[in-house]
Amino acid sequence: MSNSYGTLFKITTFGESHGPAIGVIIDGCPAGLEIDEAFVQSELDRRKPGQSKITTQRKEEDTFKILSGVFEGMATGTPIALVIENQDQRSKDYSHIAETFRPSHADYTYEVKYGNRDYRGGGRSSARETAARVAAGAIAKLLLAKYEIKINAYVSQVGDVVAPHFTKLDLTRTEQNIVRCPDDETASKMIALIDKVRLERDTVGGLVSCVISNSPVGLGEPVFDKLHAELGKAMLGINAVKGFEYGSGFAGIKLRGSQHNDEFYNDEGKIRTRTNNSGGVQGGISNGEDIYFNVAFKPVATIMQDQSTVDKLGNETKVSGKGRHDPCVVPRAVPIVEAMAALVMADFLLRSKISKLP
Amino acid sequence: MSNSYGTLFKITTFGESHGPAIGVIIDGCPAGLEIDEAFVQSELDRRKPGQSKITTQRKEEDTFKILSGVFEGMATGTPIALVIENQDQRSKDYSHIAETFRPSHADYTYEVKYGNRDYRGGGRSSARETAARVAAGAIAKLLLAKYEIKINAYVSQVGDVVAPHFTKLDLTRTEQNIVRCPDDETASKMIALIDKVRLERDTVGGLVSCVISNSPVGLGEPVFDKLHAELGKAMLGINAVKGFEYGSGFAGIKLRGSQHNDEFYNDEGKIRTRTNNSGGVQGGISNGEDIYFNVAFKPVATIMQDQSTVDKLGNETKVSGKGRHDPCVVPRAVPIVEAMAALVMADFLLRSKISKLP
Amino acid sequence: MSNSYGTLFKITTFGESHGPAIGVIIDGCPAGLEIDEAFVQSELDRRKPGQSKITTQRKEEDTFKILSGVFEGMATGTPIALVIENQDQRSKDYSHIAETFRPSHADYTYEVKYGNRDYRGGGRSSARETAARVAAGAIAKLLLAKYEIKINAYVSQVGDVVAPHFTKLDLTRTEQNIVRCPDDETASKMIALIDKVRLERDTVGGLVSCVISNSPVGLGEPVFDKLHAELGKAMLGINAVKGFEYGSGFAGIKLRGSQHNDEFYNDEGKIRTRTNNSGGVQGGISNGEDIYFNVAFKPVATIMQDQSTVDKLGNETKVSGKGRHDPCVVPRAVPIVEAMAALVMADFLLRSKISKLP
Amino acid sequence: MSNSYGTLFKITTFGESHGPAIGVIIDGCPAGLEIDEAFVQSELDRRKPGQSKITTQRKEEDTFKILSGVFEGMATGTPIALVIENQDQRSKDYSHIAETFRPSHADYTYEVKYGNRDYRGGGRSSARETAARVAAGAIAKLLLAKYEIKINAYVSQVGDVVAPHFTKLDLTRTEQNIVRCPDDETASKMIALIDKVRLERDTVGGLVSCVISNSPVGLGEPVFDKLHAELGKAMLGINAVKGFEYGSGFAGIKLRGSQHNDEFYNDEGKIRTRTNNSGGVQGGISNGEDIYFNVAFKPVATIMQDQSTVDKLGNETKVSGKGRHDPCVVPRAVPIVEAMAALVMADFLLRSKISKLP
Repeated sequence: MSNSYGTLFKITTFGESHGPAIGVIIDGCPAGLEIDEAFVQSELDRRKPGQSKITTQRKEEDTFKILSGVFEGMATGTPIALVIENQDQRSKDYSHIAETFRPSHADYTYEVKYGNRDYRGGGRSSARETAARVAAGAIAKLLLAKYEIKINAYVSQVGDVVAPHFTKLDLTRTEQNIVRCPDDETASKMIALIDKVRLERDTVGGLVSCVISNSPVGLGEPVFDKLHAELGKAMLGINAVKGFEYGSGFAGIKLRGSQHNDEFYNDEGKIRTRTNNSGGVQGGISNGEDIYFNVAFKPVATIMQDQSTVDKLGNETKVSGKGRHDPCVVPRAVPIVEAMAALVMADFLLRSKISKLP
Repeated sequence: MSNSYGTLFKITTFGESHGPAIGVIIDGCPAGLEIDEAFVQSELDRRKPGQSKITTQRKEEDTFKILSGVFEGMATGTPIALVIENQDQRSKDYSHIAETFRPSHADYTYEVKYGNRDYRGGGRSSARETAARVAAGAIAKLLLAKYEIKINAYVSQVGDVVAPHFTKLDLTRTEQNIVRCPDDETASKMIALIDKVRLERDTVGGLVSCVISNSPVGLGEPVFDKLHAELGKAMLGINAVKGFEYGSGFAGIKLRGSQHNDEFYNDEGKIRTRTNNSGGVQGGISNGEDIYFNVAFKPVATIMQDQSTVDKLGNETKVSGKGRHDPCVVPRAVPIVEAMAALVMADFLLRSKISKLP
Repeated sequence: MSNSYGTLFKITTFGESHGPAIGVIIDGCPAGLEIDEAFVQSELDRRKPGQSKITTQRKEEDTFKILSGVFEGMATGTPIALVIENQDQRSKDYSHIAETFRPSHADYTYEVKYGNRDYRGGGRSSARETAARVAAGAIAKLLLAKYEIKINAYVSQVGDVVAPHFTKLDLTRTEQNIVRCPDDETASKMIALIDKVRLERDTVGGLVSCVISNSPVGLGEPVFDKLHAELGKAMLGINAVKGFEYGSGFAGIKLRGSQHNDEFYNDEGKIRTRTNNSGGVQGGISNGEDIYFNVAFKPVATIMQDQSTVDKLGNETKVSGKGRHDPCVVPRAVPIVEAMAALVMADFLLRSKISKLP
Repeated sequence: MSNSYGTLFKITTFGESHGPAIGVIIDGCPAGLEIDEAFVQSELDRRKPGQSKITTQRKEEDTFKILSGVFEGMATGTPIALVIENQDQRSKDYSHIAETFRPSHADYTYEVKYGNRDYRGGGRSSARETAARVAAGAIAKLLLAKYEIKINAYVSQVGDVVAPHFTKLDLTRTEQNIVRCPDDETASKMIALIDKVRLERDTVGGLVSCVISNSPVGLGEPVFDKLHAELGKAMLGINAVKGFEYGSGFAGIKLRGSQHNDEFYNDEGKIRTRTNNSGGVQGGISNGEDIYFNVAFKPVATIMQDQSTVDKLGNETKVSGKGRHDPCVVPRAVPIVEAMAALVMADFLLRSKISKLP
């Protein structure tokens, strides 16, 4: 297993969906950082279930407790342990999958890889694990705030409903609707689509876009830990993610070099680029422009319909979703994308401090 | 810097484009593996410059030498060091960029991050570094061959010329044309497009697709080192890559769960899925189906045209490509994609050996 | 900070002496291992304070709770999180050291390194942290038991009272007295000495010896992670340790090669050595003989006497121990030494599984 | 295998005793460091064979070549690769051990662990590998010199000949005699003893002491990477080392806390300790006093006498040393101890830069 992420700002998460608790240890948070617990809670609240009619109706307060690493409101440099107790566990909702593999879930692969598994709610493979990441990401955001680095993710597509390009949006408006798309008109269409899909007992995919602004030049570590490579890994490690692109992304395939290249100019003493197909990253290192990327999410695998599958003995059978699930994952994925981006940026920020002699 | 990749099958590369040599150390190759040097060379030959009319005309033989770790043709378990001397260095082609930042290259970001840099040929940021990865990937392929795991990449798109889906292609035909697309008709169009672009002194982007077949079930390490997350990082770490998707990828956004889910069935005693939108990976772990993914490459940044830029002092100036460069990177990127995929798979293969008690 | 230990069998500990809890995450425990909770508790009981008249009279039950990674009594391959709540905290015993640096403690160095610190009970620098290691080490012992590897530590010296060589001791007798020396006569003298020192309001140093028997040949990873190098690091990371030696150790300095070398012979089909100055390790790899080593502990720094020191402002002042402390650390260090040895051995056991092709 | 050392200032070594070359990659050297090649060579010269009558008469010039990472005399932040070609290889001296295990060497354990091995000169287990460490350590020393941190090792004991305590020695005199003991009278006795042992076709053990002066306060990372724990691991990873102690070391066992504790005082505005039993390290972190430690070396295993052993088939046989070997390893071990100490200190220096907010 690999439950740790980061090199210098390093997290280790633990916990199963229906065990006593989930949590995270943050090792490497610089001493002296003020830990704003209310902010951490507000980030968890953005991810928690039951927050609106288009998310799962499961209720889970996701209240965290700090066990170590903070003294008199300030990080001490020792590991910060955060624990979130699991509360609303309807484990019996899952007894039907103890022996049966749900299509496009991790049941089968976990069974083969580990030989045994906590099947309740998907156990470790449940997206519940991402609450721990959001808590850790909130601490990372507090560190980034010291350097005025901002991270804004939002829902840019649900099914075939697409939002305008980020440069045409006011990203401070993301939290103003339940789907987390800063364009109200698009948001309404997205909500309508999700509602429709939910009533059809089905699910739908979506896209989360993220913009990191005000990054200093120089974050990212060539050659293997390029800034966008690490962002890509971080995003692809989120449940249900199928693709990652930054800057021009897949659209860049069709462009000519003469169209794609970002010319440099001198903007009153600051070196900038006129266009930003590079997505704020050149040679794996931030160049000071906006870092932006897209994260593709598949439709949630749990649907309220009968599907063919097999059980542990190989017998063919049927399975249908039970319990309370999200018809579309992206509204709740927004804080998760931000959290993972914050963890990557905090790590590279620390790593950048020792690249050259002072 | 981070010049190492892998956890158990671990490589560390070194070298600049115009220094004395580049190379790689492989630490963690199991003892007893026969090292077929001719095969390693043949992989390097697939990547080397000057191999066809649509690649750079720079000549570099890329002959490697093993300095350690192999005794009487067999890996001893000690680190395998491979060195490739640099030969055809026209360093003077680069004197014009000592003080000037080429658009969409790493010149500016390296300069700020490190304070000084070997500008000749892009130094460490040159794609020449990937020769070391191809050599290491060849060793990884030898290990995977013991388990009959196969990796086949090919060019699936150049500009707007698109190849058929991989399930309709004969992947043994990839090496039969210079663009490395297994469909001859598409290949001809791609070659024509690259030639046209080259004559326009421009460059064009492309897509490389990769299929890993015959993987055992159980490779990949949740939660952060999911198989596709690590593949994504590996691919995004290749020069000029802008995006990664696996399985249904970005197209999955528009699907419903009922369309997207891969139902299990019992195929004469073997558990398989009827469709493969999962791309061979569920919960971050291989499920035994074909693992497939796409890697988007931007157009090469070096073009034979004047572009606006600035120099180190911030003065606005012009720069134009000199020397010999690729008009499209994807034909030579095919072995690089395979090499990185092989390194990821070899690493996860070893990691899978200790997931559970025997 | 670095609060993780191990490469494949990897632990991360957290917690301060007077915070809400301490704990550990074990990542990499193979799925399928039965987790005997009673055994884990029994190991914690060997380390807990207040267990005899020669240890601190502080009472702390050290009851642990498993938060994740175990399902129906068996490790699932996901991270095992263990938490021990802190109970008997007399934090006010420490208010006098909030501003003053205790001699030969970590107060001053933590203050300079981190800028702020949880001074209560030494915070993170307290030996209380080792309870988490003992819990994790117990899990490692359960894994080693599957391979019949045994670890026995005992007190071999207190002050100038020295026990006979391990080859003359019955190591199953270690737990039969409160000082944990398997030789009763020596144990009595040690107890008397510790009692005397305690009444003098002073402390005394000691030696813990450890024997690992029945190790397979082949554990240890040259060149930097030699078996004895990792054991050394593990032991030197325990609070109050000042030295480590294995096999002939420091006594080997005076020997000739002809005296020191361990000749091989064939013991009914098994290759063995006639002597064991190598301490069971050759070239950093176990050779199948008993692995044995010594760990030197300094006298506990907290003494019930006035000592000169300075405060945070640099003013010279006096400080004296308050609260309840150990007059000699070695009786309670025995399970800690065993735990760290078990963690090292479990890690190398897993690492050895992939050294060569099967 | 584990051929890498360090967290931020990280080295990876490769090479066998009788292969084409040995070498090292340094990843993490801050850009901007001037690389004084003459200094690196002078350090290699201190370790090279054939430098005096009391070392092996094997001749090896140990000339290094830089393959990458240095441009116009300055580190660029990219990996620095150093290669040393092997020259004076009398591989036939080793044909007798292809099938036979030399007592107290790594032949047997490598054979079992890896299944095959390069037996010539001990292959990877040869102390020749340490030349790569000395080269890397020289670069580390250049970094430490920027911070005025000094490292001085010397021979403090050979057999039963013991030098005075380091506080009574002038450590600038170490290089003035061939045994590298700064006290001339003791040095003469040591040389005489080594010569005597050599004539007896035997070998003898020794002790190297090391003093690190002018360290800033705050180096070392609790809890597992304590400064002395990492120094211990680094030293125990050197060939033939059997023990490590720092500060009071094993002698501390017999002391009382009231004797051992180092009282703080205010030395004209600087907080210092009156005694230094702590060896410059408290709680695993440097306190600004001299860091000092001892490293015990066993007698060299190769002796020019017949010894009993077994061959690969388990047949009992005899073996005797051939070729040219050191009668005592410590004179040449001095630069190796310094190099490993420098690597540890450089790593902790970089790690200390991010412990707290600026």
